[in-house]
This record gives sequence, structure tokens and C-alpha cells, in this order.
Amino acid sequence: MLLFNELKKVSDGIDAIIQTDDYPTKISPLQLREAVLQYPSNPGKRLRPALVLWCCGLLNGNIEMAYYAAAAAEIYHNWTLVHDDIIDNDDLRRGNPSTHINLKNYAAETFSLDTSGSKKFGVDFALLAGDLQQSWALTLLLKSTENGVSPDVTLSLCRDLAETVSRELISGEAIDVEMSYRTINNVTPEEVKEMIYLKTGALLTFCVKAGAKIALNTADNSDHRIKKLSGFASSLGIAFQLKDDWLGIFSDTDKLGKSVGSDIKASKPTTLMLMALEKLESAERELLSSYLGREKISVEDMEIIKNLVRKSGAEKITLEQIKTLHQQAENCLSDFPDSNYKKLLLELSRYLVIRKN
Amino acid sequence: MLLFNELKKVSDGIDAIIQTDDYPTKISPLQLREAVLQYPSNPGKRLRPALVLWCCGLLNGNIEMAYYAAAAAEIYHNWTLVHDDIIDNDDLRRGNPSTHINLKNYAAETFSLDTSGSKKFGVDFALLAGDLQQSWALTLLLKSTENGVSPDVTLSLCRDLAETVSRELISGEAIDVEMSYRTINNVTPEEVKEMIYLKTGALLTFCVKAGAKIALNTADNSDHRIKKLSGFASSLGIAFQLKDDWLGIFSDTDKLGKSVGSDIKASKPTTLMLMALEKLESAERELLSSYLGREKISVEDMEIIKNLVRKSGAEKITLEQIKTLHQQAENCLSDFPDSNYKKLLLELSRYLVIRKN
Repeated sequence: MLLFNELKKVSDGIDAIIQTDDYPTKISPLQLREAVLQYPSNPGKRLRPALVLWCCGLLNGNIEMAYYAAAAAEIYHNWTLVHDDIIDNDDLRRGNPSTHINLKNYAAETFSLDTSGSKKFGVDFALLAGDLQQSWALTLLLKSTENGVSPDVTLSLCRDLAETVSRELISGEAIDVEMSYRTINNVTPEEVKEMIYLKTGALLTFCVKAGAKIALNTADNSDHRIKKLSGFASSLGIAFQLKDDWLGIFSDTDKLGKSVGSDIKASKPTTLMLMALEKLESAERELLSSYLGREKISVEDMEIIKNLVRKSGAEKITLEQIKTLHQQAENCLSDFPDSNYKKLLLELSRYLVIRKN
Repeated sequence: MLLFNELKKVSDGIDAIIQTDDYPTKISPLQLREAVLQYPSNPGKRLRPALVLWCCGLLNGNIEMAYYAAAAAEIYHNWTLVHDDIIDNDDLRRGNPSTHINLKNYAAETFSLDTSGSKKFGVDFALLAGDLQQSWALTLLLKSTENGVSPDVTLSLCRDLAETVSRELISGEAIDVEMSYRTINNVTPEEVKEMIYLKTGALLTFCVKAGAKIALNTADNSDHRIKKLSGFASSLGIAFQLKDDWLGIFSDTDKLGKSVGSDIKASKPTTLMLMALEKLESAERELLSSYLGREKISVEDMEIIKNLVRKSGAEKITLEQIKTLHQQAENCLSDFPDSNYKKLLLELSRYLVIRKN
């Protein structure tokens, strides 16, 4: 399939930067350096770099100039994962121990610490590893000038990342955390949708804008092509997150690479769950509600939860919303002339909403 | 005293930026925004902004152009404090509850959480508040172009902060944390001195370089004046930290604004403590050693610790080292023509080594 071949090429290019960039080499101590490299070296979909490069290509830019921005988007994404995994107590990431768990295991062995001591070390070092990744991302973006991106465009990209994305994405994460402490009845679906845009859409929007600004050699956010691409990214971001919430209940752990049911355990108010609770009759609503915040969710529990969410009609509505958002995303690309890059962006958006993990 | 009048002016200028900058206003939820503003609004010495502005003035620069860089240095310093306070379990900062404790208290009241639940909320939100401050610092620095700093110099300052300072400072913090888990006999004073430069000197070096680069309109790190000023900052940084370690044992909590003895409780290997342990005879060494890592240190314990450190000769040597470093810092300024700014920099460095908190 064309898409996966091209994603592999993107991934190879980003790997090359990650493996040769001198930022991590000067980090000490060694286990902190390794923690900084852990997620970036264990690649996910490289979706964000692909968006940067392909949007640059879509507008006839030289995609070689956009590689540092693409790598920056990937590393930036990774720091948010490292800190989110601490906050969410997630032990797995892409099928492997998450950063703070890796570091916890290291500390338990090296310093013969008990569980609480090694956990503290793991969280502290993961916190610092994420901090470093945030700075590494900015550093990579600043290196864009070395690939011929003008100082003004580079400064504009840095403002987009440090100012807009950071504020939106971190606010989104905080709203997400805060909502899980509120009674689920006090959370509105509108708040959740806003949170989803902030948490996922903001960085995707940066990616398409970065590719476009480099191609057009402009720092102008009001350019109509940049606006169209931003619309594409934000629809895609929300669709992506709705699909993620769906996978968090309806996928299998071995496919997903993280624990299914962790959203339930963390009592996260997803739109899927809010809708299900709203639509179920009182007894079933109470049953579904009773799983939220539990420490353990068994395979049998998950079956009951799936059935309830399905029966409520919330699954169907969510899948329809994903379809509509996907259509909206595609429509944003309709005015751009046909090209291989356009085809790739369309294939990518289709893949993101039909994916199984 | 001239110094304090001028520091007050710097502080007022930085306050004005912090209070009017639109970065925090768009952060949600509200308690995250307030957490981001907490340390910056409860000013410390504003030492870093003063270094930026006065080094700019020393080289006949227009200090108005350096205000964003000065504010950036202050906000950058604050995010490291917020994350350090989490790592060090420090409950107090400048005499007030630290950010994660403030947020813990908020969560306990708002969501009726137990101690462990509210503590988790406090740490998670403080983590995100520090993340936002890191990005806010970069954003302020990027705004330097609005005050007439050239794109090339602005890009160079951003590289200095995101690449050099972040890597050095965070590595320094990690080495500090890691050393506290090692047996204190396995830590060498050289490692500690290297750690001190990274943790304190790196950001001070950025400050003087930023002021100088703006004044000279250059991105050239090899300029001889920038090198001299970097020498000034690094000597001062180490002296400052040695004094901090001294205050951590010999000051009083009410003067210091944080708990005296917290370094002892955290078993932090300061050069002061390493030297004392090295120089004491076996029985006294064991006695001093026995306090490291204790959960509580009473006023009487502190008196015993003070006497042992004093008796070992380590206090005297440390105070002499501070004096020598102070002299080295002053010598770095000797080639610059006399001016009010030079006088202020000399007064500031003198103040930093004689301060009581």
C-alpha cells in the first residue's frame, strides 16, 4: 500500500535525525539520556512528521527543508506522552513499559530501592526526560534555518509551537485531568469536545501549518491555504481522538499496545461514555457508572461495558461522528490540485479513522 | 542603597510584563493559570533579569530591547523551581506553600479528596504548570523581535536557552537527584562542582550572554566580551550555590523562606557536607552521617549538625571558596570601562555572596 511505503520513508528520515542529532548525546546521566530517546526510538505512526512533510509537498515546497520541523513535531508529541503517562499512571506505551516504569525498574535494580522509592525515582526522572524533550523539540525547530528556512518563518514556527500549541495542548491535558475529578454528570459533551481539540487538534494544526509556511515561505497565518489545512487538521484531530476513545473500550489490549479499560479505571469522561450514560435507563446507567474509577477491570467486566455502551446507541453515534468529521477533513483538501501528496493526505486521514490501534 | 533601588526598578519592569503578557490569560482551567502565575507574581530577587539588563547596559545597549529576554530568564527559572519542588518534596518556597502544595490544598477542598488523592492532583497540575512556564519563557524570548532585536539574534538567544541551558540545567538537576540515591562515599566533590555549574551557572551564563548579544547585535558566542561575561556568570553561579548550601545548614528557616535542613533530609551531597564527612574522625563522621535521609530534623539536631560541620573545617573552607570565586567574578569585569552598570554588577555579585537568605 502506497501509504505505508511513504510513511516508512518519513519514519526513516525522522529516525536519521533522531539518531544523529547531537542534542541527546550531551545529556547526563546516561539513564536520563536513554529515557529521552526511549519513545522517539520506538516509533509510533510518525503521523505528525508525515503531516508536516506532505503539506509542504502539497504546496510544492521542498520537503527537505521541512525535516527539522517534522522531527520537532514528533519529539514534541513524545514529551507530552511521557508527562501524560506519569499523570495517567499508564504502565504501558506502544506495548512496552512507559518511561517512568522503565526508570522505576532501573532504580529498583541499581539502588536497591523499595517500590515507593523506585516509583519516586521513576517519576522524577521521567518528569525531567519530558522537560528535555520539550526543549529538544524547540531546538530541532530552530535548526530549520540550517535547511534554508528563513529566520522569519522559523521564528513564526517557534511562536506557533511554544505559544499556541503549548498553551492549548497543556490546557487540554489539564482540563482532561480536572474533569476526571468532577462528578461525571457535571461534565458536558461540549467541554469534552473543546478538550479534545486542545489535546490532539492543536499539535496536528501546527504540523500542517508548519509544512505550509515552509512551502509558501510565509509567516502569515491568514493565508487561505493555511486556513484550509488547519480545518483539515482540526477535523482529523477530533476524529482521531473519538476513534481513540472507541478503541479504549472496543479494542483488544494486545492490538492497542496499552491497557484497554484504562480510561474506565481513570474515570475519564469521554464523549462516548458521557453519551452512553445519558442514554441508558437508570439501572443500566448505574451499572455502567459503577465501573468508573475501579482499580481493576476484568475481561468479563469489559464485555459488560462494551455491551452497555453498544446498547445505549453511543457507539453508533460516535462512529457516525467520526465518519462526518472524516468527510469534513477531506472536503478541506478539495480545492488543492491533485498530486501524490494530496493522495497521501487523503489516504492518511482515511487510515486514521479505520485503524485498529 | 543603589543596588536595591535599581533591583526594584528591574522588578517593576518585569512585573509589568508578567502582569500584562497575554500568554497566561488564555490558560485554562483557572487554577492552572493561577499556578503558572504563582511564583512569577511572588518575586524573588529578580537576579536573572537584572543580569540580562545590566550586561546589556554595560555594553552600551538599549536596555529596553532586553526586557523580554530578562522576563524570559525569570519565567524559565520559575519552571525549574516548580519541577524541583515536586522532585525535592519541598513544601515551602519563599515562605509560602510551593506550587504543588497550593494545588493539593485546592484539590482537597474542591473535590473532597483524601491526602493521597489531593497530593496526586497537586503534583500533576504543578507538573503541567511548569511545562507551561517553560513554553511561556520561550514565547517571551521570541517576542524580543517586537522590541527591535534582530531575527538572527533572537534565534541565537532561543538556541542558547532551548538547547544549551535546558540540556545543562536539566542534566544538572538529574545528576543532583541521582547523587542523592548513591552512597555519599561514592560521590566526588568534582562531580558536585560540575553539577553546581550545570544547575545554577548555565542559566546565569545565558543571562549575561543575552544582554551582551542584544547590546552588540551579534549571535557570535566567541566575542571576547561575551566570554568575559560568561566567566563572570559561571564564577558567580558556583559561589551563589555554595552560599545556598551554606545557608541550607547555617541559616534560620524564617529568614530563608524554606525549611532549613531539607538538604540533610534529602541526603543531598553538597560539597560542604562531603568535605565535612571527609574531614571528621570516624565517630563524628558516623554521627553526622546518621542525620542524612532522616524524615525529621529538630532544632537541636540542626545545632549538632552545625557544630560538626563547623568543627570539621568544611565551613571555613567553603566560605573561603566563596570569597575566591567572588574575586574571580570581579576580575572578569575589570576590562570593562567604568559605568553605573558595572557598579551595579559588582554590587550585585557582592550582595549574592554576603546574603542571609
